[in-house]
Amino acid sequence: MFTDEYYMKMALQEAQIAFEKDEVPIGCVVVSNNRVIAKAHNLTEALNDVTAHAEMQAITSAANYLGGKYLQNCTLYVTLEPCVMCCGALSWSQISKVVIGARDEQRGFINKNLSLHPKTELVTGVMENECSDLVRNFFKRKR
Amino acid sequence: MFTDEYYMKMALQEAQIAFEKDEVPIGCVVVSNNRVIAKAHNLTEALNDVTAHAEMQAITSAANYLGGKYLQNCTLYVTLEPCVMCCGALSWSQISKVVIGARDEQRGFINKNLSLHPKTELVTGVMENECSDLVRNFFKRKR
Repeated sequence: MFTDEYYMKMALQEAQIAFEKDEVPIGCVVVSNNRVIAKAHNLTEALNDVTAHAEMQAITSAANYLGGKYLQNCTLYVTLEPCVMCCGALSWSQISKVVIGARDEQRGFINKNLSLHPKTELVTGVMENECSDLVRNFFKRKR
Repeated sequence: MFTDEYYMKMALQEAQIAFEKDEVPIGCVVVSNNRVIAKAHNLTEALNDVTAHAEMQAITSAANYLGGKYLQNCTLYVTLEPCVMCCGALSWSQISKVVIGARDEQRGFINKNLSLHPKTELVTGVMENECSDLVRNFFKRKR
């Protein structure tokens, strides 16, 4: 039951909420011991704040839940590959695992030769099509 | 009067406040039309949040003041070279100018081959010794 797809579906639901708010549709959840301890979606437009990416909010929220700033034994599921800012934040958090839906070749951290913390396991391509379709549909509607 | 040194001194005062709170002593100010519109210092320990770097708080605060997420016609003065996370955030903000006190060879964005937004002018080495001394004294006291 507690598969990567199970949690990525929850991240996709968050992304869908962003889509409905006319925000770039990216969502994520943080899971610790099979329990969701944070959920967030992109809110850069609503908050007028370039730092309000889903991952940034989820990191702050998860740390708040845990009462400590390091996200040990936590996994972040995110529908789109994190950008440079979010990669940097995830590295500082020393999170145990990051699971990505769709790749972001242009703005994602992987093609910038950045890496997460040495302790962090990285998995990509979970529900990739569903995750990328949502972003593609968003920008298609915008044009 | 309104020189880079003038505003870097204010950033250093913010860093000094962080030092006194036992936070890694990094401070910054955001200036728009010779007016300081945001000040912040590192609060990662107090807030238990790896994202609470001085620059991140200042970007959010300046955008809030301006009522828009892009920091056009703004300059950020920061006592230590921004990390990957803060470099990413500054890029998203399209800030006009970034002035750095001391370099951070190990964790700073420059040696990671990252760059700020193409619109952003970068100046380094303003009050470099004062800025680096503060960080060095902090870590010396810790050991």
